[in-house]
Amino acid sequence: MPRSGCPISLTLEVLGDRWSLIVIRDVMFRNRRHYRTLLNQSEEGIASNVLADRLKRLTVAGLLSKVDDPSHRQKAIYSLTEPAIQLVPLLVHMADWGVRHTPASEEHAVGTEWLLEGGLPLWTRLMQELRHLHLDAPAPSRSILAELHEVIDRTRATCTARG
Amino acid sequence: MPRSGCPISLTLEVLGDRWSLIVIRDVMFRNRRHYRTLLNQSEEGIASNVLADRLKRLTVAGLLSKVDDPSHRQKAIYSLTEPAIQLVPLLVHMADWGVRHTPASEEHAVGTEWLLEGGLPLWTRLMQELRHLHLDAPAPSRSILAELHEVIDRTRATCTARG
Repeated sequence: MPRSGCPISLTLEVLGDRWSLIVIRDVMFRNRRHYRTLLNQSEEGIASNVLADRLKRLTVAGLLSKVDDPSHRQKAIYSLTEPAIQLVPLLVHMADWGVRHTPASEEHAVGTEWLLEGGLPLWTRLMQELRHLHLDAPAPSRSILAELHEVIDRTRATCTARG
Repeated sequence: MPRSGCPISLTLEVLGDRWSLIVIRDVMFRNRRHYRTLLNQSEEGIASNVLADRLKRLTVAGLLSKVDDPSHRQKAIYSLTEPAIQLVPLLVHMADWGVRHTPASEEHAVGTEWLLEGGLPLWTRLMQELRHLHLDAPAPSRSILAELHEVIDRTRATCTARG
């Protein structure tokens, strides 16, 4: 694909195929930081060779960084870079489109709506929290990720009780 | 990829690979509605078999509709569907990320900033205009696409004069 100067085309070039964004989603929203966790807990059942390839590609593309985990001698830990953290608004809008036009689950729909309604102030706080988790920035006073998972879990519990 | 209920994963499933979004971008922002125009004017040099495949896939996925063009007996005309029109906020945020983190051109950067700053009121008007062009909705009083292209052309002229 020749470079066109178009930021949409160039973004798609960096993000690569859909598995890349699935991996970023799992690192970002589920804080899965090791190869093994990303593989074993994958809801989409990512294949081990695909995961290894996308982790490598995302690291080369500057969206993930990889360092040896000091607490596990054999393990590498993956972190989001600043450009990856700035994918938050794009991912929120992608989730919003999915909620409207795909058979997304009720708990994901409620979580997405909560993120979308919070708008830029909420996304900025979420990005601050991600900078804490991935880039050693100071800890925020309030965890947006914890609140998001509470919203999702509460909906899941209601759905289960109903169903 | 098994279905996970996650709207990000499901959206990526519908959009498919990056060429699909490139095609939607050309139909949406450049109003290229025929196979031949999409092929010949492609900045990224899309291959003819890739274009044919993605047009078919996007039609099956319900993002494009295809009808015979009444003014050209041999030609089919492609239109955005309502779900495709609702990709506007996602595409604006994708372009914004590209402007920040890829070597996007100056004119695209200025156009993207203009779209981003207009926010939801501007995107809503753009979506109304797309509903006019693609879904026979009433014509808007003001063309956002024309204004966007003016912003881009003005920047291009300034860059050329400078360079």
